[in-house]
Order: sequence, then C-alpha cells, then structure tokens
Amino acid sequence: MDFQFDTRTDELRASLLEFMEQHVYPAEKVFHAQLGALADPWDWDSVPVLKELRAEARRRGLWNLFLVDQHSLPGQEGAGLTNLQYAPLAEISGRSLHLAPPAMNCAAPDTGNMEVLHMFGTPEQKKRWLEPLLAGEIRSAFAMTEPNVASSDATNIGTSIVRDGDEYVINGRKWWITGAMNPNAKIFIVMGKTDPTADRHRQQSMILVERDTPGFEIHRGMEVFGYDDHEHGGHAELTFTDVRVPAENLIGGEGDGFGIAQARLGPGRIHHCMRSIGIAERAIELMCARADERVAFGRPIAEQGVVRDWIAESRVRIEQLRLLVLKTAWLMDTVGNKGAHAEIQAIKIATPATVQWILDKAIQVHGAGGLSQDFPLASMYAGIRTLRFADGPDEVHKNALAKSELRRQAKVRDARA
Amino acid sequence: MDFQFDTRTDELRASLLEFMEQHVYPAEKVFHAQLGALADPWDWDSVPVLKELRAEARRRGLWNLFLVDQHSLPGQEGAGLTNLQYAPLAEISGRSLHLAPPAMNCAAPDTGNMEVLHMFGTPEQKKRWLEPLLAGEIRSAFAMTEPNVASSDATNIGTSIVRDGDEYVINGRKWWITGAMNPNAKIFIVMGKTDPTADRHRQQSMILVERDTPGFEIHRGMEVFGYDDHEHGGHAELTFTDVRVPAENLIGGEGDGFGIAQARLGPGRIHHCMRSIGIAERAIELMCARADERVAFGRPIAEQGVVRDWIAESRVRIEQLRLLVLKTAWLMDTVGNKGAHAEIQAIKIATPATVQWILDKAIQVHGAGGLSQDFPLASMYAGIRTLRFADGPDEVHKNALAKSELRRQAKVRDARA
Amino acid sequence: MDFQFDTRTDELRASLLEFMEQHVYPAEKVFHAQLGALADPWDWDSVPVLKELRAEARRRGLWNLFLVDQHSLPGQEGAGLTNLQYAPLAEISGRSLHLAPPAMNCAAPDTGNMEVLHMFGTPEQKKRWLEPLLAGEIRSAFAMTEPNVASSDATNIGTSIVRDGDEYVINGRKWWITGAMNPNAKIFIVMGKTDPTADRHRQQSMILVERDTPGFEIHRGMEVFGYDDHEHGGHAELTFTDVRVPAENLIGGEGDGFGIAQARLGPGRIHHCMRSIGIAERAIELMCARADERVAFGRPIAEQGVVRDWIAESRVRIEQLRLLVLKTAWLMDTVGNKGAHAEIQAIKIATPATVQWILDKAIQVHGAGGLSQDFPLASMYAGIRTLRFADGPDEVHKNALAKSELRRQAKVRDARA
Amino acid sequence: MDFQFDTRTDELRASLLEFMEQHVYPAEKVFHAQLGALADPWDWDSVPVLKELRAEARRRGLWNLFLVDQHSLPGQEGAGLTNLQYAPLAEISGRSLHLAPPAMNCAAPDTGNMEVLHMFGTPEQKKRWLEPLLAGEIRSAFAMTEPNVASSDATNIGTSIVRDGDEYVINGRKWWITGAMNPNAKIFIVMGKTDPTADRHRQQSMILVERDTPGFEIHRGMEVFGYDDHEHGGHAELTFTDVRVPAENLIGGEGDGFGIAQARLGPGRIHHCMRSIGIAERAIELMCARADERVAFGRPIAEQGVVRDWIAESRVRIEQLRLLVLKTAWLMDTVGNKGAHAEIQAIKIATPATVQWILDKAIQVHGAGGLSQDFPLASMYAGIRTLRFADGPDEVHKNALAKSELRRQAKVRDARA
Repeated sequence: MDFQFDTRTDELRASLLEFMEQHVYPAEKVFHAQLGALADPWDWDSVPVLKELRAEARRRGLWNLFLVDQHSLPGQEGAGLTNLQYAPLAEISGRSLHLAPPAMNCAAPDTGNMEVLHMFGTPEQKKRWLEPLLAGEIRSAFAMTEPNVASSDATNIGTSIVRDGDEYVINGRKWWITGAMNPNAKIFIVMGKTDPTADRHRQQSMILVERDTPGFEIHRGMEVFGYDDHEHGGHAELTFTDVRVPAENLIGGEGDGFGIAQARLGPGRIHHCMRSIGIAERAIELMCARADERVAFGRPIAEQGVVRDWIAESRVRIEQLRLLVLKTAWLMDTVGNKGAHAEIQAIKIATPATVQWILDKAIQVHGAGGLSQDFPLASMYAGIRTLRFADGPDEVHKNALAKSELRRQAKVRDARA
Repeated sequence: MDFQFDTRTDELRASLLEFMEQHVYPAEKVFHAQLGALADPWDWDSVPVLKELRAEARRRGLWNLFLVDQHSLPGQEGAGLTNLQYAPLAEISGRSLHLAPPAMNCAAPDTGNMEVLHMFGTPEQKKRWLEPLLAGEIRSAFAMTEPNVASSDATNIGTSIVRDGDEYVINGRKWWITGAMNPNAKIFIVMGKTDPTADRHRQQSMILVERDTPGFEIHRGMEVFGYDDHEHGGHAELTFTDVRVPAENLIGGEGDGFGIAQARLGPGRIHHCMRSIGIAERAIELMCARADERVAFGRPIAEQGVVRDWIAESRVRIEQLRLLVLKTAWLMDTVGNKGAHAEIQAIKIATPATVQWILDKAIQVHGAGGLSQDFPLASMYAGIRTLRFADGPDEVHKNALAKSELRRQAKVRDARA
Repeated sequence: MDFQFDTRTDELRASLLEFMEQHVYPAEKVFHAQLGALADPWDWDSVPVLKELRAEARRRGLWNLFLVDQHSLPGQEGAGLTNLQYAPLAEISGRSLHLAPPAMNCAAPDTGNMEVLHMFGTPEQKKRWLEPLLAGEIRSAFAMTEPNVASSDATNIGTSIVRDGDEYVINGRKWWITGAMNPNAKIFIVMGKTDPTADRHRQQSMILVERDTPGFEIHRGMEVFGYDDHEHGGHAELTFTDVRVPAENLIGGEGDGFGIAQARLGPGRIHHCMRSIGIAERAIELMCARADERVAFGRPIAEQGVVRDWIAESRVRIEQLRLLVLKTAWLMDTVGNKGAHAEIQAIKIATPATVQWILDKAIQVHGAGGLSQDFPLASMYAGIRTLRFADGPDEVHKNALAKSELRRQAKVRDARA
Repeated sequence: MDFQFDTRTDELRASLLEFMEQHVYPAEKVFHAQLGALADPWDWDSVPVLKELRAEARRRGLWNLFLVDQHSLPGQEGAGLTNLQYAPLAEISGRSLHLAPPAMNCAAPDTGNMEVLHMFGTPEQKKRWLEPLLAGEIRSAFAMTEPNVASSDATNIGTSIVRDGDEYVINGRKWWITGAMNPNAKIFIVMGKTDPTADRHRQQSMILVERDTPGFEIHRGMEVFGYDDHEHGGHAELTFTDVRVPAENLIGGEGDGFGIAQARLGPGRIHHCMRSIGIAERAIELMCARADERVAFGRPIAEQGVVRDWIAESRVRIEQLRLLVLKTAWLMDTVGNKGAHAEIQAIKIATPATVQWILDKAIQVHGAGGLSQDFPLASMYAGIRTLRFADGPDEVHKNALAKSELRRQAKVRDARA
C-alpha cells in the first residue's frame, strides 16, 4: 500500500497545474464575455479563447489524456494512462469546469463517446467520427435518458431501432441529452431497443445518428435551476420520428447496447467524481478567501467558530472521498469494472452528497453574492445537484449497494456456520 | 390555549382557497407564457392575466389584507386583521408565490413599504405614494442592502444622505434591491446615514427617491441560481450619485431610519415565513403526486421506504414550524415586536432550513425534471435559499438567540442562588 | 387561536414550579444516596425522601393530576384537568424525571394502568387495585412487549390467555416490562390472545395478574446502555407458565385488549413527550450553565460560535416541538384520540429525535463528565433513546404517517379533478 | 499509488482473522461470565479465558505487534511493523474490543505507555517496567487528564512535580485515568508541571509512580452511560498528595513532558481509529444479520428501504474513513508525526462521528434489545462516544484544522499574487 502518486502522474499534475494558473484561470472571465457576445449562445466551442486554450493544451501534451484503455498507444490515440493516473488530472480540470476539460479535449460526454467508438467502433466509424472527435473538431452527444423511464433502469428504454433493409429506423423521445444544443454536436450515440423480446440485457443496441438526419428534432434545452448550461451545450429534449440511418451505423452488434453502456459507465464515474472533487477544492479555496476578507461585526468571519467548523468538515470529508475515488480507479485498473462494482456505486453515492454539502457552506460564507452570477458557486451547486440523479437517483444505488452488502455478510455467516 | 382559527380567519381562508382553485392555479401557466411574450420581461405587473386576477381578488375582498396595523380601519386602508389572522392567508398565498401575493396586493417588498408609509408617512407622502400603492397602480422597492456591508449589520450602512438646503443629497451603492428592475417600481425607500457621528442607532434615516431622479442608476439584475426573478422585478444593483430629493421626502425625522427598519421587520418575517410554509405545502403536494404516479422497477415510488420517510418528516417538520410562526404572530399582536423578539429570530432560523430540506426531497422524488423549468421546485428552492441570508445569515441570528438564551438562563440561576 | 395557558394551568404551573424548587431539586442527590443504601436496590418507592415528597405533593394538591378522563370528579379521583391543562405540568415534572412524577403519583407505567382501570375496570377491580394505586400504596406494570414480536405490531402478541372454567390460564414471555423489578409492583396488566381465530383486532385481551401468582416468574432486568434503571423499577423479562387467575381478572371483555391498548396509548404519548421536553429544558439549562462556567483557551466556551449554534438550535427546536405536543393534547380534548391520530404519530416521531439531539450537544458541552454519573445527561440520553423504539420504532410510525399523508393528498387531487 | 496490502500484512491479517474466528469470538461470552464471577470485578486481566487467549496469541506470533518504532528488532521487542502494517491488524482486533487487544498485548493505554518507555525510558526503567509490560505480566495507566483543565489543553495541567533532593514530590488530581481501577495496573505515567515559569511547552514533565506509593489514592471509577468499564480497568479519579518518588523515575528530562505526550499521540490515534473501524465493521455485521432475521409485518426488515439506506451509507462511510486512517499511518511512516499532523487531526474528527452514526443505526435495527446487555452495541456506542472528547473535544480539533487550512490557502493566494 502506497499513497504517493507515481512519477508520470506527478509530472502531468505539475504540467496541468501550471497550465491552469497561466492560462485557464485567467481565461475564465474572457470566456464568459466572449460566449455572451456570440450570435448563437449554444455554439460554445467556437469561443476564441477556448480555441487558444485548446491549442496551448495540445502543445503541452495535455490532450486526450482521458483515453485510458490499455490498447491505446501513447502519442497515437490516448496517452496510455491508467485510470489511477488520469484521475488526479480530472480532479484538477474540475476546478475550472467550463474551460479545462474542453481545453484538454477531456469533456463529457465526448470522452465517453470517444471511448465507445475507440473500443467498439468499426474502422469506418472511427475514421468518420472518432478521428474528428479526437482532433477536437466536432462534438457529440449520448442519447439514452427518456422522460418516461427511470434513468436508473436502462433495460426499460422505450426508443425503438428497427431494421429495415440496409437501414435502421429509429423512433423515440429523449431528454437531458447533454451537449446536444451545440450546433457543432455532429454525432449522436442513440440507445434504443432492437429486440424487445430478447433477454432483458440483450434487447438494447446503440446506433450513430448524425445531427442533420431527417426526422431527428431538437426541441428545447432543459434548465437546471435557472441555468440552461449553454457553456457546454445544454441538455436537449429530442425526438426521433422515423429517423433512418445506414445499418453500418450500429455500434457492435444488435443487443450489445446494454453491455456497451456498462463499459462506458465506469470510467465516466471516475471522471465525474474526480472533477467534482476539483469543484469542491475550488469551493474550499473560495470559502477560505472570502472568510479571510469578509469582516462582520469587526472581525473576519474566518474567526467565527461555525465557519471554521465548515472549513474543517469540508477538508475532512473531501480527503476521505478522494481516497475512495482513487481506490476505485485503481480497482478498475487492476481487477476491472466488475471487480470495482461496489466501489463504483459507493463513489456515485458519496460524491454528490459530499460536494453539495461543501458548496452549500461555501455559498453561505459568501452571503447572497454566493448565489449570484458574481461567483461560480451557485452554478457549481446546480451541476452537482444533477449528479444525485445521473444514471439513477442515489436511492437506487444505495438500495443496490445494501443488497450486495447483505448478500456478502450472509455468505460470511454461512461460512462460519 | 386554543388551536382553532377564529371565524373571521376561517371565512377568509375559505374565500382565498376558493380563489386559488378557481383563478390562481389555472393562471400559472398563462402568466409565464404572457410574461415570456412581453417586450420588457421585467415589466411583470403589466401581464394581462395578473391584472384579471387582481380585479377578481379585489372583487372578493382579498385585497390589502396584509395591513394589520391596529389603526387601519376595515374597508378603508387595510382589512383590520391581526397578524395571527393574516398569517394563514399569507401561507395560502405562498402556494402560488408569483401570482397570489401580487394578485392580492400583498407582495413583498410593497407590503413592507406600504406599512412604513402607513405608519410613518406624512399626509403628502401617503397621498402621493401610499395611495397608488394601495390601489396597486405602482410598485416600490426598499433599498437597504449594500455590497460592502454585512446585511445583518444595518447600523453599518455606507450610503450617505446629506442635508443641503431644502434637499437631501444621496450617494451610495445598493444591491439585491428586490423588485427594482420593474419599470413600474416608481418609488424607492432608501436607507442611509444622515449623521455618522450620532448614536449607533440614530445615524440612519430613510428617504423616498423616485425612479427617474437624476443620478439614480439601475445597473443590473442579480441572479439567484441562474434565475433573474423577473417574475417579480428581479434584484437590482443601484447607485446613487449626488441624487437630490426634496427634504420632505424624508420618512419620519433624521435618525429614525433604524427604528423604522425594525418596525418594518417583524410583520415581514411573519409574511415571509408563512409564505414559505405555503411553498413547502405545495412541494409536499407535488412530492406526493409524483410519488404516486412515478413507477420504478415495477411499483410506484410512493411505496419506497425512503420516500415515505421524506414525506413523513416533511409533514412532521412543517406542522411544528407553522405553529411556531403562528405563535410569533400572536405574540406580535399581544405583546408587540419587542416581546416577540426571540420568536422572530427563531422563525427566521427555522423556516428556511426546514423548507429547503423539504424542497430538496421533493426535487429528489421528481428526478432531474424536478430541477428543470417543468416544475416550480428548483425555482422555489432558489428563493428559499436566499432567505438564509436575508436580513443577515442564519449564523448571526443563531448567535444572537443563543446570547439571549444564555442571559435568560443566567438570570434563572441567579434568582435561585 | 390563543397561545396563552388558562388560569387553572397557570396556577398549577406556578404551584408545581414552587414545589420543584423548594422540594424536588434539593432532594435529587438525597434520593440517589438513600436509594444506594437500600438492601434491595429495586425497592425504589420505599426511599424515605421520596415518601416525604409524596406527602408534600399531596398536601399541595399536586396529586394524580394525570387522570384527565372527563368523568373524573375533581377531588374524587383525578383533578378533572384536560390533556391540554395537564401537559405543561408533565413537562415540568420531566425536569426531575426520577422524582417529580412519582412524587405526584404521575409516573409511568402506573398512570396508564390507572387510566385503564379507571375507564374499563369493574367496581371490584377498582376497589382492589385502582384505589391503592391512586393512593400511591402499590405500583403496577404493563406487560405487552415480547422478545419475538415487533413491538409495533400489537396484533401479533404470542402470549396466550385461555379460559378454563372460572379461571384463565396464561402462558408466554414478556420483556422490557418497566417497573416490574420493584417488589412493590403488585399488579400486572398482561396482554395476550384469547382467540387467535378472531378478527385481527379482536384476538387480544387484557388481564390482571398479581405479582405472587404461581407460575409467574421475573427473570432479570434489561439494561439500557449500562443502566438497570432501578430508580424506577427497571425493565424486567418475565415468563408466565400455566399462570391461573380468576376469570373476573379480565379487563373488559374477551377481545377488548387491542382497543384498550389504543385508548391507553394517546394520553401516554402526550405524557412521555411533554416529560421529554422537560428533560430537554433541563439539558439546555445545564448546557448554558456549563458553557458559562467552563473556560477553555482563556474564555468561557459560551463564547464559542459552535456552542452558541447548539444552544440556539436547541431553543428553536424545542419551541416548535412543544407547540406540536400541546396542539395534540388539545386535539385529544376536542376531537378525541382518533381525530388526533396523525398528530399522535407526529409527536412520537419528532420528540425522541429532537431531544436526543439536544442531549448529545449538552453532553458535548460538558466534556467527558457529561457522560458520567456526575451529571444526569447520559442517563437522560439513555432513557430518551429507548423512546425511538417504544410502541414500535420511528420507522414504522413514519411509514404509517406517510401512508396517510399520501392518501390525504390523493383525495385532494381527486376532489380537484 | 497502490491500494494493496503488502505480503507481510496479508499474512498477519490472515493469521489474526483465524485467531479471531477460532479463539476470540468463541471466548466472548466466557469472558463476561468469568469476569462476573471474580471477587474483584476490576481484576479483569486475571480472567482465565483471557490468559488462555494470551498464550495462544503469543504462540501464533500475534504479540506486541503494535510496537512499530523503527528501532525495534523483530522478535526482540516489537515485530518491526510499520504503522501502515499494524493498522489493519488493529482494525481486526477492534471487532472484539474487550478481548482481542489484550490477548495480543496491544491494548490501550499499555501500548502508548510501552512506546513511551521504549523510546524515552532509561535502561533501568525499561528493565523494571517495560519488560513486565511487554511480557504482559503487569498493566499500566497514563495519568494526564484533570477535572479542572480542558483536556485539549495539555499545557495547562495543574498537577505539580517538584524536585526535592533525590526525589520528586507530586501533588494533583486526575480523572478518567483508564485502566487504573485494575489492581494489576502497577505503574502510572503521570504528567505534571516541573517548571511553571518555563516556556509554555517546556513546563511539563512525565514521571513514573508505582501503585502503592504513599499519598497516591484511587477514589472511584468514572462511569460512561452507566458502564463502569471494568472489562478493561475502568476510568479512575486519582489524587496525589505529597507523593514522593525517586528522581530517577522521571522520563527523559525536566520539561520533556509535552514532547513525549505528542510523540505518544500519533500512533495512539491510528490504533484508536482503526479499532473503531473494527467496531463499525462488527456493527455492520450485526446489523445485516439482524435485518435478515427479524421479520416485521410479514417480511424481513432487510427489505425495508430505510434499513437498506443505513446499510449502504454505513458501507460508504466506513470505506472512506478507513482509507484516510491508512493514509495517515503511511504518512507517519514516511514523513513522521509532524508531516501527518493535519491527517492525524482529520481522523480524530472523522472517526468517532462516523462510527457513532453507524452504531446508532445498528442499534435501531435491533430494536430495544440493541440497547441492552444482550448485544454489544450500546456498550460500543458508549465507548465511541467518549472518543469525541478524548484528547480534547471534536470542536477544538476542527478549529485547529480549519486554522491551518486557512493558513495554507492564504499561502496559495499569496504565491499567486
């Protein structure tokens, strides 16, 4: 057991931290100003300063680092990092959530989509969509969640994907499709049912749909609290009405959809959780700065016992959480997604709750300003709050985790008896 | 001791409940649609359906009920209700926060401003501003909070009000001035210092400033979790640069500002707290409806133990809270603001925390939709969250309450010894 | 609506408060010393100072006040108080839980047992057992809870009561029978099944069993944390092996057991909750005194923000809770046990959680001493902790309360549609 | 970074787990029975089954493993383990807190005392007291806490140690001196002031006092929630009245007391925290077993959503906590006590709160029985609750941790500016 990062990680961390200080943080206000000046506010990835950041990140070798699959060759596709090596980089990027991940071409949902194409795509699919995604030329979306189906229950998807000659015909409604409002989100991975009569986990397939395919409509952006999240392409409600795509757009084979979704899930969780820890660290930083600066009744509020209690609790909680997420990354590297199953659930449960708590306190230290556009805290809070539903609400995950704990304990008892 | 509402209250509650069912709830979607279609989105009180509601409320005698000062004559200015009689009506109105209070001409900050003018205004001030406010023809704002001063510390106000011949000259910066973005907010009550050398509670004065006075500028609307709250006039940042108003615009005398602010505070707290309870009741209603309708893994989520726990806790907490707020209203009626001091603090502490908790659970039961524009829950949450800062953060109030508890207990010990 | 106590209550409160100050508090240490010196530590009601207190309470008319049934004649059996009048007296008595209730002959479980005999007993039963109980000459126990049955599920009782000629034969095992270790607990009300084939709520009966009846054995005292609670007769585990009692010992008729248990429950809840509030008030008193006295790092801990937060929260929570319990008492007086059903559940849920929280903080303010025999706090905590199971765990009550809330809300929706 | 235990740790864990299953768990009931039959209940380390366990542990090489100082030679004094290697063994031993640690001669406070003697003792002191302690022949106590001094403030100790010729004369009062009621606790390490005029951290010294020294009196055992903790020697209140000991009993030099106390602290925290995690694991085990067995309203309570929520939360919290404690152990091994300072504070804050929460839920799942002598849960709870005060209350540690966090963040800001 060893709690020290390896040399590669240390070097990449140092490089990324420098990039953040020299380029990313200074660009934050610029980005929002330039984005506000765009004709189409959804067209976020055309913002000039972001383009500069991307060039700089690429120059520094901070590009596509997320692609941790073991088959990736360094320099070629990904950086050949392990999940455990990439995780602390994801954390750092989370400190400037709207800028650092896209600057490094490491932003969701593109990361998961690139992983899917990387692992399951045909050479043609890779050429056509993975390459421009890896090059940061286009963006993508992942269309799974549906309004009428609990998102925790992927087997229940209502969208149909029906073979008709050389084509598949898609019908269905999706919502909360992140990134989809961006006109440059050119390609959608759509989950639907190809065979509702198959085994429960073999009914679903994934298929690629291009943005301008007839019958595919983008209706509106869902808001989170009052944010439309145009900084990263919003969350769209979509319909597919007799949408026809070539049969070769299928990813893997018919019935592979659920398996691909599961494979996509694990690394995504690590990324989300580590970025959320980065958000929490940024919030602690802001909370401490504000506590030192703000004077009430004649002394800085950093001297108030209750504020200190929040700061200490924040530190204690985030240290524990980070270790659990890192251990989960390590498990994924060493025993795989399945062996890390309980931990992947655990970090899904722990992360949003912990970070939400910290954000609430950081906001409170800021007074009403903390809820406003003058600080990033309320927007962070909104984003983190959605994680308590993403891939199913906390309660579903807790229920499942408890079930396996009960099973595990029963086995121990049986072994004793 | 008697927990039954009196006949007058029962009748008014019945009348208001009927108005809500027949007119207010059905108008909610209409209001947002019509508001969205306005040229100026801040001009909320010109929305047609709201005008109809106001006419209907007036017809039904549900108008200006908030004006509980004992000197008001029924039929003349207010309805002559006690705080305890008005409180349950405020609760009901909170169930449709954007519509019911303004429909009844009982929306903050106009209510507090009308109370101030009613109690402290000169006949000329009443004629010029209170009358159109009571008639619902214009709107008003209350400009106290400043960016550089903890809002819990009203004695610390930085804005200056300097006598110069027949005029006062005002200089300062204010923010979070609710309602001020509305072009029909014609009159501002501004708090500032007339004499920084006077006793700590005699330095401040209040003065009336009309919207179009030269030197008075409205800069921007503050946002709360992405919401600009244009449904009720937003929260503006303002500056006063050598703003000159006639000396007769002063409310009361020089140095009366702090006292007027205190007098304004008590009833406002009751209103805010009761409306917040109404919000919580609406949230419980939505939570139960959703729990019954939404099916996950084959059964309504209303059958899940954790969801039931939330529903039960919500009920248990809100019942306790309501009683405390009603008791506080009763104390204000019977022993006055001062006698109700501890309770006024207590409800300030208890209400936002309780209602925020309930809203968080109601949102969770709704899934991601609960955070979106499809339900009012996230917007309610944002509004309630601001109450944890309004008139100073929770922590200041807890500290003060604890201090008086410690003092009280020390007296009991002394009496024993 | 009126939050003032009536004159009768005010007078009785004043009288009881005086009794507490002059007699009860000063006797607390004496009681524990004298109890420690007894040959049989369970024989608590023979402690001399307690006998003196009882005489004094009786002299002051503070005797049997709990008996609130409307048929009781003042001066005769009870004092003819309403539940709402008695409730604040129960609170005050809770401040010295081991002394004040028994001094006033108002201690559980005798109170509930006297109510049962008063309401359902035959003249012979009253003469033989109610009269000495009302006179404070003997003590009693209520034997319902069983080791193998969830105590929330009274319909599931395993003890059998079988008619055999002029007698009933009782077989079964009970535990947590409070007061039963006291050798002066002469009479037991035992709940069992007379007809397992009857309707679910008509299977149970209650029967009187004298302490020295053959086949009735008292095995051991259950401990709570490390306390055996000999100060009020402990909590015994009992067995009934072919215990024979005369048929006239049955209370009411066969099958009346469940109904009698329900009737006994309501007032008991009020008493328990109000006494618990008294415990909380005593804890706040101790917490404030300690916070003022104890110096750490050069200043009294009463000046620490976190300690103030606890004191304020304690006050805010207990004020809300008390009002809900008082309202429940009022409902029982005005609409009866059934009409107060939801509130009786609500106070069962809210009280132990709230008071446990306050006690935890009061202990923390005391440092390790707070857990020791030098202060009553740990013992109070232990007692309150048991209330989270008494008559079924919190979770059962929350589940039931949520079910009725869901039903109520569904009705409202139906009425609208 | 690597989350796998090394081979040595894996082997020792396997060996210890086997010892627990084969010997320790089966001995638990026997121990309490034999202890109950002793003439002197405090004389716990003479219980026969415990002696057998010690022999068996020694035979298996599970003896004195705690002694992790780098200078210890394997086989000679300690086992030469690192803190990180010993920590998981401490966890396992915590599962049977009254038996496993003493069986392995790894029970507090002897462990800390042996470390002190090992690191700072003279050859004579080692021969006379360390050797029999390492052999498990005698027991010891550590007398630091005083009734009138906040235990968080070691610099404030009131006990005096005054040189008088060849002797030191000790005067003072101590309490909560764990293990001291055991007649076989032959040697006491006493902290006091030798020079109240020296620098704040050089006033204190530690000195060895034998149990039978004239003037040294043991007054009473402090109780914790009704428990006297005679299973491990209780917690005594002591006085020293002109107690004279030879000058060579001083540990280190005059003024070294504070430094020795600090050196003793770090490893002790790791041990306490890991054993507490063992307690939590045992509680989760009991909670799961009970949830599977206990049927309420027709189904096992393991199927109730709320119970599952508790089980999942328990697992999620304990996994995080364990990693933080292990990391702290690793830091102590690699950068020393000082480098691990923040983490040592963090685990002091996190551990009792987390484990107390889990125990509360485990108790709740057990119903009233969970509070009784029939399960170890209430006793565990009492023990863990004291940790929220040990070496100072949580609040002191949070305050200190927040202060250093604020300082650290200010440095980061300064570096940026």
